[in-house]
Amino acid sequence: MLRLVSRGRGMTEFTAAARDWVRAQGMRDGLLTLFVRHTSASLLIQENADPDVRSDLERFFARLVPDGDPLFEHIQEGPDDMPAHVRCALTQTHLSVPLIAGALALGTWQGIYLFEHRRHGTQREVALHLLGE
Amino acid sequence: MLRLVSRGRGMTEFTAAARDWVRAQGMRDGLLTLFVRHTSASLLIQENADPDVRSDLERFFARLVPDGDPLFEHIQEGPDDMPAHVRCALTQTHLSVPLIAGALALGTWQGIYLFEHRRHGTQREVALHLLGE
Amino acid sequence: MLRLVSRGRGMTEFTAAARDWVRAQGMRDGLLTLFVRHTSASLLIQENADPDVRSDLERFFARLVPDGDPLFEHIQEGPDDMPAHVRCALTQTHLSVPLIAGALALGTWQGIYLFEHRRHGTQREVALHLLGE
Repeated sequence: MLRLVSRGRGMTEFTAAARDWVRAQGMRDGLLTLFVRHTSASLLIQENADPDVRSDLERFFARLVPDGDPLFEHIQEGPDDMPAHVRCALTQTHLSVPLIAGALALGTWQGIYLFEHRRHGTQREVALHLLGE
Repeated sequence: MLRLVSRGRGMTEFTAAARDWVRAQGMRDGLLTLFVRHTSASLLIQENADPDVRSDLERFFARLVPDGDPLFEHIQEGPDDMPAHVRCALTQTHLSVPLIAGALALGTWQGIYLFEHRRHGTQREVALHLLGE
Repeated sequence: MLRLVSRGRGMTEFTAAARDWVRAQGMRDGLLTLFVRHTSASLLIQENADPDVRSDLERFFARLVPDGDPLFEHIQEGPDDMPAHVRCALTQTHLSVPLIAGALALGTWQGIYLFEHRRHGTQREVALHLLGE
């Protein structure tokens, strides 16, 4: 289990932590699965070069699913709570990445990200799982 | 194979049925994969406490992908058919959940849902698959 | 590894190539995972009958995430580059499909597609991975 601390809305890369965990399992071939145990944070594989990509993505989702939208009735936990659930529905709760000949199959520009959807960051748990040999 | 009956548009939880199926396999560690065999219903992991979350999600998708949108040319099967395909593209056809020490890695507030996108419910098949030991 | 050539924006089916690859592995039961090694192309399972479904999906995404949107700051690689990253966030980087008794669990109307998001097509790599027995 990885425990990640998000610093408010937006994406936090944890590719290196995932790679370290995989390396420690001592497998050469298998399937890595990452599963976020929350309904207001999700997982993404995204471009890992230009930080503008992350801020553009965050702005896109903020416009698509606006805080305080009068459409929503689930508002007890704040104006950013129901938008967080919608953002999770539109992105991923889990990712699987093949491990082939000792290396994750990520492309050159792909990083693994936690996508925090609440305004205030918090501790988030990502379950890691590796099947193979 | 799970056969679920949807009662029209919206989300139906089947976490308990998935847990029962996993228990019957007698494994302790592995990877559960759920795969919906349709292109107008999808799968989601979502908040399982307040039912308003489900109705808010349904209303959000109904607004984002409106029935009868003149953008669409695939209309032979009704005004809700192409929107159903788009909703599937925006959500998940499959989910994978790690099984660790005999328990699915779901967080406290996470439930597994079938998301029916057609107005009229129907029988839906979800293939269940467990790899591990 | 499958190498697919996309011919510009839109969906290219490769179900047959995936099936052929699975058959060559000689397994009966397992989990097929497909992972696209790019951040401006993604994977989808969609309706494989009426080609209007694919053009409708492309038009929907083009409207939802317009090229040249002034919201975006990551514009060095062209007006379609940041929209491509957003479309990837909204769709899938990987798919997993159970293999049961020698057959992929795909429903009758489900095909596996590469979804190219850049205007100009290019060569794309999809890592294939099969776990099982």
